[in-house]
Amino acid sequence: MKKQINKIAITGGTHGNELTGVYLINKFTKNPDLVKRDSFKTIFMHTNLEAIKQCTRYIDKDLNRTFTKDGLNNPDLDTYEDILAKEINQKIGPKGSDNPNVDFIMDLHSTTSNMGLSICISTEDKLSWQVAAYVKECIPEIHIFSWKGDTGDTSFVSSIPPSGFTIEVGSIPQGVLRADMFFETEKIIQTILNFFELYNNEKLKKVYTEIEIYDNVKSVDFPRDKDGNIEAMVHPDLQENGYYKLKKGDPIFVTLDGEYICYSDLDGLYALFINEAAYYEKGVAMCLAEKKIISI
Amino acid sequence: MKKQINKIAITGGTHGNELTGVYLINKFTKNPDLVKRDSFKTIFMHTNLEAIKQCTRYIDKDLNRTFTKDGLNNPDLDTYEDILAKEINQKIGPKGSDNPNVDFIMDLHSTTSNMGLSICISTEDKLSWQVAAYVKECIPEIHIFSWKGDTGDTSFVSSIPPSGFTIEVGSIPQGVLRADMFFETEKIIQTILNFFELYNNEKLKKVYTEIEIYDNVKSVDFPRDKDGNIEAMVHPDLQENGYYKLKKGDPIFVTLDGEYICYSDLDGLYALFINEAAYYEKGVAMCLAEKKIISI
Repeated sequence: MKKQINKIAITGGTHGNELTGVYLINKFTKNPDLVKRDSFKTIFMHTNLEAIKQCTRYIDKDLNRTFTKDGLNNPDLDTYEDILAKEINQKIGPKGSDNPNVDFIMDLHSTTSNMGLSICISTEDKLSWQVAAYVKECIPEIHIFSWKGDTGDTSFVSSIPPSGFTIEVGSIPQGVLRADMFFETEKIIQTILNFFELYNNEKLKKVYTEIEIYDNVKSVDFPRDKDGNIEAMVHPDLQENGYYKLKKGDPIFVTLDGEYICYSDLDGLYALFINEAAYYEKGVAMCLAEKKIISI
Repeated sequence: MKKQINKIAITGGTHGNELTGVYLINKFTKNPDLVKRDSFKTIFMHTNLEAIKQCTRYIDKDLNRTFTKDGLNNPDLDTYEDILAKEINQKIGPKGSDNPNVDFIMDLHSTTSNMGLSICISTEDKLSWQVAAYVKECIPEIHIFSWKGDTGDTSFVSSIPPSGFTIEVGSIPQGVLRADMFFETEKIIQTILNFFELYNNEKLKKVYTEIEIYDNVKSVDFPRDKDGNIEAMVHPDLQENGYYKLKKGDPIFVTLDGEYICYSDLDGLYALFINEAAYYEKGVAMCLAEKKIISI
């Protein structure tokens, strides 16, 4: 962990209809000094330009599930996002390289789920966890969600360099800019850049040894009929309550006819990514996580 | 206004990513008795099936701006939605006919703007205004927004039959079902059906003579640079406040750099459709309306 950090990437528009990241990159493009620091170089980029132009999550497939090593090495995968992933991998990777072009990445996202500020972290990398702990100390309301993703091998944009994670803020509808969360996301970015300036100059006051996280356990789909049609909606008690602590018997869905469907899993799991628009097609109405303190 | 009402249409999915209407039609399809009444026939349908399937607002163009008389009569207009509009017009119109297939229509929509329950009404038709007044009496929190639309000749789905209007509920992100607003929209539908049952049986207790409305004055675009890029966001004070009464000096936008842009138009106009995702491309950050009581 003592290696100097030379290059940091800020990426936005991985999902083209998540405008917070798109417009923060616009802002930095206009005024690069905002993300400049003396001890490292900061690059920033829109990752999925065509999806941004069309204000859609993706063109052919979810770019943020396209960075598996197998996929990046498979020349037969040739959708718009498959080709784009290979290009991005060359720019800020390549993934798994001993000498990557970027040392740390933060990928900017938003969610329709009302879960405030979150870091979604998918790596065992020690430096990434030190950054997360520093951000959590500076911005205590942020949640740390530990999630390896839904594709086996980690396939997020943030998995390309050795270190990094995803920043998720919500609720924000797709295709909408929200001023409050725009500035809160920028604050997280600045905090991360501050960390690395201290880190490179060996001025960090401490090494963090533990952190409170929400550790992903499973996801829960909407109740569906045999044809896959959704038969029940997220219950109003959960709708606006990201990181909601569930106990047996809590209503979690309500059918189109108004009947409640109650939670019957383990007491004390926390619900998050509740009613995220992009997860309807992934079969995820919410994620369930265990709250714990881990050593880092 | 004494004509018997024989057929009423409920339409949903005119915008394929506005799921409230899509799933209410699913519900009625499964249980048609819910919208059955003795004195008239109720039909219900998804209007834009392909957009619903792709969970997108439209395929080629906004279906809810495609029902101008000129457009419907122009065989050269042949995009997906142009052709679809002509088909729908035959089913529930034709528009302008003395003997239309449907007497009244309610078209179900949702908005990312936090404006609660609204009826958007675009017609001088007396019966439509009686229905709106009845709904307002039964559900006082509903707002009546009088708006001719942005295309000159009224081009909404709701303009096909002689009578009807659009129901708008929000805030709901695109691609998301919200239980509370699903049931509130259903309540509005039931109230309208109840009106016509009373109307046909001459059991309405009164004829409404006036109604409080928000009368559209103009729309306001986001501040943009010379290339059309948005340079400022809706100010947080307005973000969650549909039907907000503006006075000179109120901050209405905040630039990406954090500077406030203040309102300088007439005191006392009300802002609505604030930060609707689908209106970014239409150049509308919010609509401004005058609150007034009109004779009907």
